[in-house]
Amino acid sequence: MILYYALKTVSVASHITLEEVGAEYELHQIDFRVTEQQSADYLGINPKGRVPALATDRGVITETPAILAYLAQRFPESGMAPLDDPYAFAKAQEFNAYLCATVHVAHAHKLRGSRWVDDADAMDAMRAKVPQTMHECFSLIEAEMFAGPWVMGEKYSICDPYLFTVSNWLAGDSVDIADFPAIADHNARMRERPAVRPVVELHGL
Amino acid sequence: MILYYALKTVSVASHITLEEVGAEYELHQIDFRVTEQQSADYLGINPKGRVPALATDRGVITETPAILAYLAQRFPESGMAPLDDPYAFAKAQEFNAYLCATVHVAHAHKLRGSRWVDDADAMDAMRAKVPQTMHECFSLIEAEMFAGPWVMGEKYSICDPYLFTVSNWLAGDSVDIADFPAIADHNARMRERPAVRPVVELHGL
Repeated sequence: MILYYALKTVSVASHITLEEVGAEYELHQIDFRVTEQQSADYLGINPKGRVPALATDRGVITETPAILAYLAQRFPESGMAPLDDPYAFAKAQEFNAYLCATVHVAHAHKLRGSRWVDDADAMDAMRAKVPQTMHECFSLIEAEMFAGPWVMGEKYSICDPYLFTVSNWLAGDSVDIADFPAIADHNARMRERPAVRPVVELHGL
Repeated sequence: MILYYALKTVSVASHITLEEVGAEYELHQIDFRVTEQQSADYLGINPKGRVPALATDRGVITETPAILAYLAQRFPESGMAPLDDPYAFAKAQEFNAYLCATVHVAHAHKLRGSRWVDDADAMDAMRAKVPQTMHECFSLIEAEMFAGPWVMGEKYSICDPYLFTVSNWLAGDSVDIADFPAIADHNARMRERPAVRPVVELHGL
């Protein structure tokens, strides 16, 4: 497999999960500084022009929740998702969908406002609200979703690399992770995992 | 099971899928006109204050992609997802994640701008770009994602009720579905399905 990734982006979640499941894979960096995600070569791999993209022997998979569930299913011995329990699997997927469609989207209004408006003042207005929306999202995660010690409870799962990835964005969004003690502790414990250390080092997290 | 839904919202996708799999379920309408989604009673069911929410014997599931995959797994005889093929399942999940995190989010900038800005002019700027962003999303779906005759190809799947739900929003977003012949044809064929007819009637679609 080949993981197409960019530094410090959401592709960190897929990268950690590849390490956790013990997959054999190669890394291919996409350089956002030169907008390589919009190059003809990369659009041939992922027409959306985003990362991550995971090239497999069957074809390319995009969208973090889909990639993480795929890795859990391809490497069932890793125990990264409750594959035989539709309800528990749904709760893991629910968590990842919230990170993907609500938290990541809230964060994207800081630097990716041009996706939704053309007006510079409107982009400033979007940027101004990001600390509030990210704080609200993480308050909800801490109060209602995070079971502890891992996201889903006693068992480490595909939700943990994803939460770690997104919780690393808080400082840049002017939110103090210390406001969320369980998530701050989770972030610290994630950094100690052998599968996480090389990814943190590569991405400078 | 109980589906908490609101008229003409994304809960249509879960409603159709409940019909398709032959589940026994009750409906509980949440009235957005009186902001019932923010009532204390409903926040006790779904602290996010959104629809849909699917109450099961184990607990409540939210987020459309999670609900749809859950129904496919709970009712495997329905054949609504390729449960034994991780790659094919990932491609269905990838499609649903795109609808959830990109297309639905683009659409939400018309009426839900207050999620991301406080400024009325900025909300106007968001609203102005919705026809363009929705057109771009559906162009990509038509060109790159829609296999035909159903989203994933020959087999009807959990992607089809979701695409139908979102393609019904195009007219209100000032986008002509006729610009996307395969998706327009899909929408028309969906309406003929016995499982879809009562849902279309209830929601006035």
